[in-house]
Amino acid sequence: MSDTSMPEASRRGRRSRKPGHASASGLAQRPFKQPKRRFAPTAIVSEDELQAIHLASLRVLEEIGLDVLYPEAKDLLRQAGADMSPDSDRVRIPRALVDQALASVPGEITLHARNPAHSLQMGGDWTAFCAVASAPNAFDRERGRRAGNQADYQDFLRLGQSLNSVHLWGGYPVEPIDLHASVRHLHAIRDMMVLSDKVPNAYALGHERITDAMEIVRLAHGLSEADFANTPCMATIINSNSPLKLDMPMLNGLIEMARKGQLVVLTPFTLAGAMAPVTVAGAVTQQNAEALAGLVVHQLANPGAPFGYGGFTSNVDMKSGAPAFGTPEYMKAAMLGGQLARKYGLPYRSSNVCAANTLDAQAAYESVFSLWGAIQGGVNLLMHGAGWMEGGLHAGFEKMVLDADLLHMVSAFLEPLALSEDDLALEAMAEVGPGGHFFGTAHTQARYKTAFYEPLISDWRNFETWSEAGSPSAYDRANALYQQILAAYEPPAMDPARREAVDAFVAKRVEQGGAPTDF
Amino acid sequence: MSDTSMPEASRRGRRSRKPGHASASGLAQRPFKQPKRRFAPTAIVSEDELQAIHLASLRVLEEIGLDVLYPEAKDLLRQAGADMSPDSDRVRIPRALVDQALASVPGEITLHARNPAHSLQMGGDWTAFCAVASAPNAFDRERGRRAGNQADYQDFLRLGQSLNSVHLWGGYPVEPIDLHASVRHLHAIRDMMVLSDKVPNAYALGHERITDAMEIVRLAHGLSEADFANTPCMATIINSNSPLKLDMPMLNGLIEMARKGQLVVLTPFTLAGAMAPVTVAGAVTQQNAEALAGLVVHQLANPGAPFGYGGFTSNVDMKSGAPAFGTPEYMKAAMLGGQLARKYGLPYRSSNVCAANTLDAQAAYESVFSLWGAIQGGVNLLMHGAGWMEGGLHAGFEKMVLDADLLHMVSAFLEPLALSEDDLALEAMAEVGPGGHFFGTAHTQARYKTAFYEPLISDWRNFETWSEAGSPSAYDRANALYQQILAAYEPPAMDPARREAVDAFVAKRVEQGGAPTDF
Repeated sequence: MSDTSMPEASRRGRRSRKPGHASASGLAQRPFKQPKRRFAPTAIVSEDELQAIHLASLRVLEEIGLDVLYPEAKDLLRQAGADMSPDSDRVRIPRALVDQALASVPGEITLHARNPAHSLQMGGDWTAFCAVASAPNAFDRERGRRAGNQADYQDFLRLGQSLNSVHLWGGYPVEPIDLHASVRHLHAIRDMMVLSDKVPNAYALGHERITDAMEIVRLAHGLSEADFANTPCMATIINSNSPLKLDMPMLNGLIEMARKGQLVVLTPFTLAGAMAPVTVAGAVTQQNAEALAGLVVHQLANPGAPFGYGGFTSNVDMKSGAPAFGTPEYMKAAMLGGQLARKYGLPYRSSNVCAANTLDAQAAYESVFSLWGAIQGGVNLLMHGAGWMEGGLHAGFEKMVLDADLLHMVSAFLEPLALSEDDLALEAMAEVGPGGHFFGTAHTQARYKTAFYEPLISDWRNFETWSEAGSPSAYDRANALYQQILAAYEPPAMDPARREAVDAFVAKRVEQGGAPTDF
Repeated sequence: MSDTSMPEASRRGRRSRKPGHASASGLAQRPFKQPKRRFAPTAIVSEDELQAIHLASLRVLEEIGLDVLYPEAKDLLRQAGADMSPDSDRVRIPRALVDQALASVPGEITLHARNPAHSLQMGGDWTAFCAVASAPNAFDRERGRRAGNQADYQDFLRLGQSLNSVHLWGGYPVEPIDLHASVRHLHAIRDMMVLSDKVPNAYALGHERITDAMEIVRLAHGLSEADFANTPCMATIINSNSPLKLDMPMLNGLIEMARKGQLVVLTPFTLAGAMAPVTVAGAVTQQNAEALAGLVVHQLANPGAPFGYGGFTSNVDMKSGAPAFGTPEYMKAAMLGGQLARKYGLPYRSSNVCAANTLDAQAAYESVFSLWGAIQGGVNLLMHGAGWMEGGLHAGFEKMVLDADLLHMVSAFLEPLALSEDDLALEAMAEVGPGGHFFGTAHTQARYKTAFYEPLISDWRNFETWSEAGSPSAYDRANALYQQILAAYEPPAMDPARREAVDAFVAKRVEQGGAPTDF
């Protein structure tokens, strides 16, 4: 028998189940459940090699140093004994400060959502998936690509809230640039807390913005100021200014968030060949040095505050300078970053990213390659999990639901194999015997409804039925599905008093003019 | 800084490099090079759990047994002490025979191609990628889906021969059903040996066909009969008739190939919920029992002959019975199969498969998920690596070049990270310093041409340039590329005397009427 001649009958027998699994109320999807990895992540280098990278990044900190542009951070570093340049912003950080920071930082924390069912474990073997963040443009097939705006921003919030494989926010899915920069953070964080009950994410763009954001989150949770500082319930993603520069707004936000005990994830954006050395090893060494420098400042500001290690090393197209994502080099860097984070006992952030301009095969293969790098790299916080397109330049509505399906598949893959005596199924095999069929057995009947993940997007109809239906692509199905989900959206419950407090605070701060825009 | 605001300038700066990298002579692609895995595969279950599956499959062999439909195989099993049912084809195989077979089978062999540059290592940490095999239909976008035929078959051979990431054949890429079944194997294997110089694959469809195929390969290699039997230079993929049945044509071919020392890969096609239990653990237990039963017969026929362990467990859509591929269950089964093969020290076969009807995001994500399962499962022989669509019901020209690009990416991922002092790039970092750029440095300039994998298909142009070019999808690019490659195809060199010998043998056997068609 040749490889595929035998099952022909079965394959041809595919009937015409329509994909989508829509129910009247919206979407038949798996419940919200945080996945936990049961297998060891991939060690892409040996322990000796990992140590060599660790030592090289300590040398970067000690011998080259970084430019630190925020006085308060400089004060903290000076007092801790860092080597301060007398005539520049250069700071050289001794390895003892790294060891000290690694000793005080927690390895695993709970991130509390305002809906406790959406609270998350961060670190260890836990994984959590964010929506896309920070795209300057929004896209769907009917309306095309347009500058980010509040209406699209709110729709992305509604969509992400509705998708159970989106566990938390990684920032604004799309930038609402029709809101003036002075008050954008007020409206945007309010929207995030009202339209969604999942863990929010605010940008560390200077003192006023991050302070306002924390206040809105605190009010939405109904926490006292003291309780808020003991309850991690939001995160911020902070990029260093690679190479080797920590700027003022990011350090300011990092310190404010640390002092309030909220999660800071420091992610150097080290594009190999551009803002970092052209070698993966060199780019990750620089990434590691920058992340450790951020950790040192963070733990000096508040020892024991939660901190995540972000990896975002990728390569550029050396002919055009365009950043690439989901490449072989990206995968290796993602796994190497995870290996370093585990060495330090820190939660690890990676991403689901692609450079594709449209929702075609490229968008999918680059995304799944980046998921492969992240999951096998032991990711704890997957940024841009759903909706990222075009190297981050647009957030796609269709891509968000397609990615949500991929994330559900990854979650199902991460579920442990059931291996009881009954799962090994010797009785069923004896019952069916050679040449039989398992469809009708009691063993199958008892399990078939839940045995396998049922995708939202994948079309498994046979070619003829699929052709008669107009040959829909995954893009077509995602387009229909996102609209269906948005139409069925209902806002999550919210205590009226808390909502009133949030609205009052936002109104007051808007009236005050919001935050300065001279950053 | 928010996650994506910082690199905006770099992202917007993407210039308009056209993808494809075409040269006048065809295709600028990486050279033919067999990848070798440097990291440990994923252990999806613990050692204890693995042992439990192993023991359960031994119980299947001993307690349930299999139907063995070929007298010669029955004789071998009887003489070796298997428990033969007096009134049926049922044979129960004691575990001692499994141990004996595992003691004699080799772990790693060389597969010799008629072009020595295309010879391959099979087993250990080596991986080799096959083209799609056994599809009943061919497809390209202009001509649509049509029944397999010799002209398409030959074009797939030309395409696979031209693609450096396709290392060998896994069977006929598409079935040339316009050739009468009595002589199809003669023309098809001749075409494979003439249009390509990569390792061939013949179907074990009874004595005459496999004997003819071996003779054609022997003549194409210019080997004596004795030398041929000591020189593995072809493979066959054999499916058991799941559940628990080894039929006559497959056992006949298995024994003939074993006696000539050619590679047999036995692959149970255990669709969970159809030909196997609905649980992944049960389906893989059955897969394992069937593979081990085949191994026992094989090693009894010729101890020490090369044998590969095939895993092809997937799930079905329980609503329609349609087989699914690249699912979470598929990935787990692929990794578990690899773990079993490694326990036995056998080369492991897995696949690159999808159920999509068109080259859309689904085709790509299902394929990359199956690649993820295979590569992290420690695959040695990747079947259907390039061109498989629609659950195997069509071979796609566009998919073949898109997959070839994915396979090159996987190969680049498998290349070890360079970790020399120079790769760690401390000097370059010191030279560039905080806030600088690495584009112009000597460190970058010395490496940029080869630092990163350059994809054939991925379009990394910015959105505007890509839109002006007509918004081509990956499907469009694959369509143009496969035609370009076919236009540039040149047949590989072949010794005229050997070609004459092959042609004469085929002519003689065709004149004799070929092989019986009553199988």
